Amino acid sequence: MNRKMVLHILSRILVVEAILMLPSVIVGLIYWERATTAFIAPIVILAVLGLALGIKKPKNREIYARDGFFVVACAWVLMSLFGALPFYLSGYFKSYIDALFEVISGFTTTGSSVLSDVEALPKCILFWRSFTNWVGGMGVLVFVMAIIPLSDDRSLHIMRAESPGPIVGKLVPKMKDTAKILYGIYIALTAICALLLLFGGMNLFDALCHSFSTAGTGGFSVRNAGIGHYNSAYIEMVIAVFMILFGVNFNLFYLILLGHIKDALKSEELRWYLSIVGLSTLVITLNIMSSFKGQSFRYAFFQVASLITTTGFATTDFNYFPELSKSIIVLLMFTGACAGSTAGGFKISRLIIILKSFKKEVKKLFHPNSVTVIKLENKPIDSSLSHSTVNYFMMYILIMMGSFIAISVDNFDFTTNVTAVISCFNNIGPGLNVVGPMGNFGGFSIFSKLVLSLDMLFGRLEILPMLVLFSARSWAKKN
Amino acid sequence: MNRKMVLHILSRILVVEAILMLPSVIVGLIYWERATTAFIAPIVILAVLGLALGIKKPKNREIYARDGFFVVACAWVLMSLFGALPFYLSGYFKSYIDALFEVISGFTTTGSSVLSDVEALPKCILFWRSFTNWVGGMGVLVFVMAIIPLSDDRSLHIMRAESPGPIVGKLVPKMKDTAKILYGIYIALTAICALLLLFGGMNLFDALCHSFSTAGTGGFSVRNAGIGHYNSAYIEMVIAVFMILFGVNFNLFYLILLGHIKDALKSEELRWYLSIVGLSTLVITLNIMSSFKGQSFRYAFFQVASLITTTGFATTDFNYFPELSKSIIVLLMFTGACAGSTAGGFKISRLIIILKSFKKEVKKLFHPNSVTVIKLENKPIDSSLSHSTVNYFMMYILIMMGSFIAISVDNFDFTTNVTAVISCFNNIGPGLNVVGPMGNFGGFSIFSKLVLSLDMLFGRLEILPMLVLFSARSWAKKN
Repeated sequence: MNRKMVLHILSRILVVEAILMLPSVIVGLIYWERATTAFIAPIVILAVLGLALGIKKPKNREIYARDGFFVVACAWVLMSLFGALPFYLSGYFKSYIDALFEVISGFTTTGSSVLSDVEALPKCILFWRSFTNWVGGMGVLVFVMAIIPLSDDRSLHIMRAESPGPIVGKLVPKMKDTAKILYGIYIALTAICALLLLFGGMNLFDALCHSFSTAGTGGFSVRNAGIGHYNSAYIEMVIAVFMILFGVNFNLFYLILLGHIKDALKSEELRWYLSIVGLSTLVITLNIMSSFKGQSFRYAFFQVASLITTTGFATTDFNYFPELSKSIIVLLMFTGACAGSTAGGFKISRLIIILKSFKKEVKKLFHPNSVTVIKLENKPIDSSLSHSTVNYFMMYILIMMGSFIAISVDNFDFTTNVTAVISCFNNIGPGLNVVGPMGNFGGFSIFSKLVLSLDMLFGRLEILPMLVLFSARSWAKKN
Repeated sequence: MNRKMVLHILSRILVVEAILMLPSVIVGLIYWERATTAFIAPIVILAVLGLALGIKKPKNREIYARDGFFVVACAWVLMSLFGALPFYLSGYFKSYIDALFEVISGFTTTGSSVLSDVEALPKCILFWRSFTNWVGGMGVLVFVMAIIPLSDDRSLHIMRAESPGPIVGKLVPKMKDTAKILYGIYIALTAICALLLLFGGMNLFDALCHSFSTAGTGGFSVRNAGIGHYNSAYIEMVIAVFMILFGVNFNLFYLILLGHIKDALKSEELRWYLSIVGLSTLVITLNIMSSFKGQSFRYAFFQVASLITTTGFATTDFNYFPELSKSIIVLLMFTGACAGSTAGGFKISRLIIILKSFKKEVKKLFHPNSVTVIKLENKPIDSSLSHSTVNYFMMYILIMMGSFIAISVDNFDFTTNVTAVISCFNNIGPGLNVVGPMGNFGGFSIFSKLVLSLDMLFGRLEILPMLVLFSARSWAKKN
């Protein structure tokens, strides 16, 4: 491993995080809040540490696939450890672990909270909380890559480790430009969302914060009742539509920008995604008709959009939905939205690959000597990718099972334990029962909070980077 | 497909099933029960149909891999459809679907019941119920193969489709002899179990029935309170030890019979199996200590043995265990015992292969060009097997998810729905909440009972045969 280069990239990350805290400080100054002071120490520490470590530029700028995984996992852990400081120092969190859980939940765009009353928080803290959702959505390393000069092959390793989904491609020949285009689309869509919310009567602060959480598909709200607080069908529709947009592969937006609208709409993953959204909305609408009457489409569509994109915003407590709707909701938590979007979960393209290799397996029974090539988006997928997707699925389930055992020590009920793990691992936010849309994760023990925090990181970074981080080999003197 | 040969094998199965009903008739005659008449029509139909269809012997006795899958799935469905008749005709079941659920639960060695009061049933019906557990445990086709003359290659296809686990081997060069040896060991162990239960003060009828369900790791009891009825530590220990024995790969017993005890004990799968049993028992013993005091080992060991072997006998209602124990119990339901045993579930050898390919995947990150060979029992496993095991895992989870959605239409709670599917698919018997050890499946709708019945068949036959059966291609005129 090229340790010097790893350290160099990490030092940049620290500086970037210090800069990312500045908007929250400005918010604190505008509202003249005492809690603003909670940002001083973290910013100073991050800046000093980052600048000190980053002084010496390494000569060897090579970076390998494994280093990419390691850097990304390390960066996310460091950002979380430092990012929790403002929360902790503000005094609104019971312990540092609670603050850490909250910030990991933010960066990973999970949106689970340990708090029962978010409206009691100062605005600067609330802003930082929603902002972590936004930063984590696109990924901070993609951002840093737009700054650090790295050869293209090298930065692809990092991009691959941080971006969700089985396949990561470049939009334009230069990786640096790709990162800039992605962030450009991200910022533009976020701004449009905020404007539309303003039109709906939301105040500027709420509109900004909710656009951040919508864009990152995070789900942190500045209101205790979530989006339900505004009781406005317009606001709910705006957010629902934008959640679905942020669940789309950003490459498609680029295609549309270039005028290739037809090509974008041909996307196999997009079609599956919209079909699943449509079908689930239909079934849930019919299923909750008896209790929600004419409003059932409104609630069903918002919940489906919120959960398939792993945002986790709530307008109603789906704990009281009939079981069929709840079961569909739990499965939507698994699927997640499109690869290359800000959404978490398993990703629909992976699901397509899995279903196709399932079909291939059955076909092989009938024609043992047939050679079936699995295609995604009309491109053949080589067998190592389909194999590693299936392997990913297996690790995904095994890690969830292990976490489920671990947190059941707290003696919450089965449903709570299962859905808490699914929710954290897939970066959704709410689960059922105790951790339902109107509940929170505050009741879990410190041990369980740490387990769930790790689940969020494993989920956001899609397992492998975290395994590399925890592997003894990565820390061995020689490797 | 060689349709004539398929029909020929199926005709034999029908005759065999008629013969298998005779012991129940004898029991009915001994106790001089009116319900004995419920067996007359089924036996006559089976015998006439079987003999009529079997008159013409096909010239071409070739049978291919796919035909093997088809025959096995067809045989199990037919046996279930006819096997449900005595239950239905006895008048003790609400509907034919209830009777069908019960008999599928029996043959697949699941042991889930739609009945709340089994002690109300006549003895001949109870005997048939427990006997289906015994027949299904080893598999009726293995039995038929000891009768039908088939070339060795051909019968291996059938054996492979019916026997649980990823690898099926021959004990001796001739498949027919292998089948005989397996049945010999099975009958001997069942007899020893029955004798030991008699010594413990159980009456002959109860001892026989419970030995059948123990041997098949089915879990049907003739008592409402299950094994808890006898409140005897001796009886519980005998049954627990025998459940664990019937969860061991039968090949190992054959090795022991040949005097190769050391080789048998070296088995990797056996060691994992016993370690999991030991560890789970330890944790549950400690976890339930506060409520069960000195009896906690007794209850923990019995429950672990009952669930890992997917038997599902109950001595206590684990619905009231602390959550950690309940979570472990749910995961034991997944693992199942050893391949080549009568137990259901995922099978420990598959788990080992999965964990090893997981490890391989991580290792590949560090040494991208390394070639790691996965070994099981010190033998290298070719990549197609490890691939198909991972694929199996994927289908296993996907089918369970689909069933979970389907049965949630009945509006039972999340825990009930999840554990009902896990329990049926893994052929265990009880789940949690409504379908807990002291509950039953009687409350589900006809639709859900059919879904769960299919799950039991998919689980027992390990998916592929059922997929072949349901595939349109199998029924196409030309194939």
